[in-house]
Amino acid sequence: MREAYQEQLRKFAGRLAELTRLTDEAMQQATRAVTTDDLALAELVVRERKPISDLHHVLDEHALSILACQQPVATDLRTIIAGLRMSADLDRMGALAHHVGEIVVRRHPRRAVPDALRPTIRAMGGVAHQLVTKVGEAMVARDAAMALEIAQDDDAMDRLLHDLYRELTSGTRQPDVDTIMDLTLIGRYYERYADHAVSLGKRIAYLARTSA
Amino acid sequence: MREAYQEQLRKFAGRLAELTRLTDEAMQQATRAVTTDDLALAELVVRERKPISDLHHVLDEHALSILACQQPVATDLRTIIAGLRMSADLDRMGALAHHVGEIVVRRHPRRAVPDALRPTIRAMGGVAHQLVTKVGEAMVARDAAMALEIAQDDDAMDRLLHDLYRELTSGTRQPDVDTIMDLTLIGRYYERYADHAVSLGKRIAYLARTSA
Repeated sequence: MREAYQEQLRKFAGRLAELTRLTDEAMQQATRAVTTDDLALAELVVRERKPISDLHHVLDEHALSILACQQPVATDLRTIIAGLRMSADLDRMGALAHHVGEIVVRRHPRRAVPDALRPTIRAMGGVAHQLVTKVGEAMVARDAAMALEIAQDDDAMDRLLHDLYRELTSGTRQPDVDTIMDLTLIGRYYERYADHAVSLGKRIAYLARTSA
Repeated sequence: MREAYQEQLRKFAGRLAELTRLTDEAMQQATRAVTTDDLALAELVVRERKPISDLHHVLDEHALSILACQQPVATDLRTIIAGLRMSADLDRMGALAHHVGEIVVRRHPRRAVPDALRPTIRAMGGVAHQLVTKVGEAMVARDAAMALEIAQDDDAMDRLLHDLYRELTSGTRQPDVDTIMDLTLIGRYYERYADHAVSLGKRIAYLARTSA
């Protein structure tokens, strides 16, 4: 019984790690699609919303079943509740990657991101990847210090968003309205993605500390 | 013991209703501030982020304490878990109202919303209020049918967002970049607010059905 319960908890952690990996992959692909006008890749990102959302629901059902059948207390209870919230964060991150992909599909054959702004979007995608990679590593290592670094690392995303919005307003030639709207939203999607990574980091740090 | 437990559950439901009320009030005030250039009101909305966020955390702690001490099962377990998620939805809605207020403060003394677009933003605020009012009513009445209407009611918000974005792109005179960026984000904030109301409606309907 106890053995089976530990196996349940391990499986739950494994699924959370898998959802983290899928979410990272989706945003990396979305970044490539939006900075290279790759319609096929953007369509793939849009389709990949479903496996991420499905795994999120599997994780939620799994958490509820552990709560109902095992009635965990103390560290295990906190782990499951934090897992429920992390699953929700990761699902939202998947949705944000999906939104970036949707913009590429909607604007095709026009390009969503003008050449001059591509390096900034690429850099935002790079920071997103670094943040969620650290989320995955801190999750496995249960490393509170590493998890808390994510909040600092997020400053790089805020700076890039600031750069992007400044580039939009201060360019020598004003972009058309659609481009301004798309870039405003794309910037916001990366910023929110990073915010969720920070939230994941805080939950991992909390768990690492209370179960140490 | 059983009596005290029931009292805990009632108190939890009461706090959730109060958070719903605060979130509605914040978005109503934000709408008034952004459509009348009311700086003082916008600053109030920005400050009101804290009581909403505080109550969200009180609710979370309360839920964890009920889970840990009472180990609820079946309907009560589902109610507490749904409550945790609804508290997170409501906190995000409070954050979105806050973001609308921030835009007013940032743009002052310039106006965030041009005259021609004010009726659309006012209408979005009106739909937001209707949606969350229905959330509150369905929550108290545990009325699944009413809760599920919210998903349909949300269509009005999608139409208004579509109108807003069309007005931005098709005006005779192109607004300046700052205005386009602000309106793109404001529109997005109302849409997300409504999405969270839909999510609340689904959770209320699920609870009403499974505990009937």
